[in-house]
Amino acid sequence: MKLYDLELSGNCYKVRLLAALAQIPLDIVPVDFLGGAHKRPPLTDLNPWGELPILVDGDRVLRDSQAILVYLAGRYGGASWWPTEPALQAEIVQWLSTAANEIQHGPGAARLVDKFGYTIDKPDALRRAGRILGLLDAHLATHDWLAVSRPTIADCAVYPYVALASEGGIDLSPYAHIGRWVARIKSLPGYLPMPGT
Amino acid sequence: MKLYDLELSGNCYKVRLLAALAQIPLDIVPVDFLGGAHKRPPLTDLNPWGELPILVDGDRVLRDSQAILVYLAGRYGGASWWPTEPALQAEIVQWLSTAANEIQHGPGAARLVDKFGYTIDKPDALRRAGRILGLLDAHLATHDWLAVSRPTIADCAVYPYVALASEGGIDLSPYAHIGRWVARIKSLPGYLPMPGT
Repeated sequence: MKLYDLELSGNCYKVRLLAALAQIPLDIVPVDFLGGAHKRPPLTDLNPWGELPILVDGDRVLRDSQAILVYLAGRYGGASWWPTEPALQAEIVQWLSTAANEIQHGPGAARLVDKFGYTIDKPDALRRAGRILGLLDAHLATHDWLAVSRPTIADCAVYPYVALASEGGIDLSPYAHIGRWVARIKSLPGYLPMPGT
Repeated sequence: MKLYDLELSGNCYKVRLLAALAQIPLDIVPVDFLGGAHKRPPLTDLNPWGELPILVDGDRVLRDSQAILVYLAGRYGGASWWPTEPALQAEIVQWLSTAANEIQHGPGAARLVDKFGYTIDKPDALRRAGRILGLLDAHLATHDWLAVSRPTIADCAVYPYVALASEGGIDLSPYAHIGRWVARIKSLPGYLPMPGT
């Protein structure tokens, strides 16, 4: 099972993190991102979006980090990471949407500006980041884990760009509950760091 | 089962559309959006995000339209709308992420500017819309439905803000495959329109 990967991508790191925590073997294929390999064939044949990560498992090809988390956890990771009950799946999907929307366009976008020089509206990214980090901190004041009473793919999806927030010029120190959640994730057996976390 | 609803919200319409297609009874509760009822208690007690839709089913409260689709389909709609196999769920989640990210921040954001006067960067929204509509059209050139070989919650999640694109000043006529997919959705038994589609 191949993961087309960029080490510095938080979206790729979501997948590597789950694989490490759930002990799912992955064949990591580093992609020449600076050279634009993800923007041309053969990678655009696998993912016309021109983005990473991409997972290839036999005939199955998946784009989108949230979808890859669902696949890996559901197929290989066991129900503790992605339960089979629709109600619990829905609790988790709330946070997969948050990862794809508010986190990506908040702390994720701020980091793209500062670390990779993207011409995104930085004040807008910081405004979005402040809102979602406040909501996240309030939620974590009464929850150890995001979606259910144990770590799931919800935590894997939201964690990377929150833990990397300082690379977008965002100070996490006002968010004490987020800080404790980050520490809980880092103490999980098998935890895999990435540069910047 | 209560849906706190705004008729003109594409995110609320996602839920009403699935409920109509899958024949799931919902008690629709209109919210005084212009009066800001979603931004204060008791609604912020249900959803601290201050957003609609919100679903309440007994003790369970869900925010986020994608999560509500998973819950309704998985619990009440049957496996045709949300299958139980992780591989098929992952195919669908790809499009739930697309709905929460590229569609929301593309055609969805353009409509917020034109129809509701939001001070969002309209050229950025149009640029994002052009990219995702092109990718969507190319995908639909070889697929009748987004995720698997039948309509699923993937189609319910992506459809509203695509079908409402003209309200953001976006012309869908160059996207012939999207046009045919829109027509297929409109011909489904039980289809429910919304103003603007």
